[in-house]
Amino acid sequence: MIYFDNSATTAPCDAVIKAATEELTSNAAFGNPGSLHKLGVDAKKRYASYHDECAKLLGCAPEELYFISCATEGANTAIRGALAANKRAGKTIISTRTEHKATLSPLEELAQEGYNVVYLPVGSDGIPSEETFEQALKDNDDVALICLTYVNNETGAKLPDDIYIELRKKYAPNALCYVDFVQALGKVPCDLRLCDMASFSGHKIHSVKGCGLLYVSKDAKVKPLILGGGQQDGMRSGTESPFLASLFTAALSEAYANMDEAYGRVAGINRYLREELAKRNVTVLSPDNAIPFVLNVSFPDFQSETMLHCLEMYDIYVSTVSACTSKSKKVSYVLLEAGVPQKLASNAVRLSFSRYNTMDEAAKFIEAVDDIYDKFLVRK
Amino acid sequence: MIYFDNSATTAPCDAVIKAATEELTSNAAFGNPGSLHKLGVDAKKRYASYHDECAKLLGCAPEELYFISCATEGANTAIRGALAANKRAGKTIISTRTEHKATLSPLEELAQEGYNVVYLPVGSDGIPSEETFEQALKDNDDVALICLTYVNNETGAKLPDDIYIELRKKYAPNALCYVDFVQALGKVPCDLRLCDMASFSGHKIHSVKGCGLLYVSKDAKVKPLILGGGQQDGMRSGTESPFLASLFTAALSEAYANMDEAYGRVAGINRYLREELAKRNVTVLSPDNAIPFVLNVSFPDFQSETMLHCLEMYDIYVSTVSACTSKSKKVSYVLLEAGVPQKLASNAVRLSFSRYNTMDEAAKFIEAVDDIYDKFLVRK
Repeated sequence: MIYFDNSATTAPCDAVIKAATEELTSNAAFGNPGSLHKLGVDAKKRYASYHDECAKLLGCAPEELYFISCATEGANTAIRGALAANKRAGKTIISTRTEHKATLSPLEELAQEGYNVVYLPVGSDGIPSEETFEQALKDNDDVALICLTYVNNETGAKLPDDIYIELRKKYAPNALCYVDFVQALGKVPCDLRLCDMASFSGHKIHSVKGCGLLYVSKDAKVKPLILGGGQQDGMRSGTESPFLASLFTAALSEAYANMDEAYGRVAGINRYLREELAKRNVTVLSPDNAIPFVLNVSFPDFQSETMLHCLEMYDIYVSTVSACTSKSKKVSYVLLEAGVPQKLASNAVRLSFSRYNTMDEAAKFIEAVDDIYDKFLVRK
Repeated sequence: MIYFDNSATTAPCDAVIKAATEELTSNAAFGNPGSLHKLGVDAKKRYASYHDECAKLLGCAPEELYFISCATEGANTAIRGALAANKRAGKTIISTRTEHKATLSPLEELAQEGYNVVYLPVGSDGIPSEETFEQALKDNDDVALICLTYVNNETGAKLPDDIYIELRKKYAPNALCYVDFVQALGKVPCDLRLCDMASFSGHKIHSVKGCGLLYVSKDAKVKPLILGGGQQDGMRSGTESPFLASLFTAALSEAYANMDEAYGRVAGINRYLREELAKRNVTVLSPDNAIPFVLNVSFPDFQSETMLHCLEMYDIYVSTVSACTSKSKKVSYVLLEAGVPQKLASNAVRLSFSRYNTMDEAAKFIEAVDDIYDKFLVRK
């Protein structure tokens, strides 16, 4: 199997499987961190150690991290929570139309509730320009919240390293900034000092589906979304899961231990594929600023879904648009927003890599593409 | 180890460990149910099969069930969502002060937002009487929501089988009813036709922490709490986790397959312990209507936490109050609400059983209690 759909989800890595086996079969690992007896104390300690380890890797304080069920929960908590906790901060939210639905859906709801949501246009590089960003900040003197995605899930487009921090400081120093780091985590550095809130997903870094991480800076006031027993300092009630925290942490540790090596290899794969595909008149839709882990391309004469299923016959897995929106079967709103013509966008295929992909797989992919053109294309 | 703290959390059972191993090591099990290719289709099918299996066991339609991260998320979704989706239904909520914090905390917030939350007093049996319930319904003609717990987590007190449905139909036919079935699931039948919304937790039935189930009747309008990609019919966005759904389903199936046998055995354990403890002047605080899986008792001359730690020396694990509130180290609000005198309540210990406990463990528990009294009690 050649799996080039790692932006949709990833297979659990060996470290995660090992952590799961240990958690599940160790006789004393199942305690409730809230329990007063030894099993609870042990569970609490282990849970704290996962907080510590993630915090160390991400460069923040352990008490700034909260284990959550998924990045969608993180986005909802951060976005709604920041506004609910800072009601007098202003009524304007700045974002883009190329955000993930986990951001766009809460924003749509907030717009209905009376918030002024300013969606910045993105350029052909898939990100809002500094000028656009600055203009929006100048035009709105009541910006309470800024929501951005560091790496776009469909194109790999990456924001400037500084995430416009100077502009934010200059024009809206009190606005909170939420950054979706889901597609960046474990692939490129994520500098949490540049934002107030951030979310991360386990299943994008070779952990399981159902675990994630929310970062909330010590200095940011955010109201919890899920209320109850007050676990995790009240930011996320519900019995803590050392099991899932361990599976998240195992994947994160492994990703960080191999980040440079993986980046180099994936950059090589990306370069090779861009070159080979260019020879075959395939248009690269990912902008130049895209990280190498995502390569969005448009195949001539093949609609997205047709190519996806053709490749499937070779046990090669790619995607059309984001898995979270694939059900609607529409052309990618992210690509259209970046000015990709409808015709190219409707033939778009997203290849997304992980630290486990190899150059050999890339070569086999190209062979399969050639074979598909030979076999399935009725030459005009 | 003798683990009598199953209302706090449970150890993963063999069926769950097996399901986890299969999910994690099967090459093709990790797909995103939202993906269009085979791995996605397979994941979606498996996910649907878990919905089907749970629905069959619980006696509802698969599309009435949503996999969630925990019962706390379920309570928050049901309570806030029911009111948000039915804004003109009324401003009164009826509940009790003996609910779990997952219910009480959202209710406190709703009270601050202007809702009239009526907390019914509970009797010495730990539940509100029919008369009390009826009076509250008579006194308030704008009841939008009723929140109750079927089995109390600290005492085992169980509501009447019919959950006051006739009274609800008579006085507040349009009010939605949320029932917390967490401590009932897999132990006694849970009749979902008697409520509009319900929540269930995986880690209380020998699955892992981080999975749960929310029931929303087809006829009830509930607004989702977590918005995004629209997964699970939009009721719960976020990438679906066939992994966690499989671990929940494995535990539920096993619980239901052995429910009668387990009930009988645990009833025997409970009866035996009540008899033996009575001989030792231990006061049973669980009311007569309590299910046998929870036995709250008050040991003379030992404060709750002292007895907990004494038992721990014998590798026996029990709890004082609910794990979710144990951090506050206060005397159980549930017991005080039911009229248990402060002195008795401050010596309360909750024994909570699961389908895996045995009579032999109960006998060893009694031996340990005798030993503790012999060794540690300075006779007055």
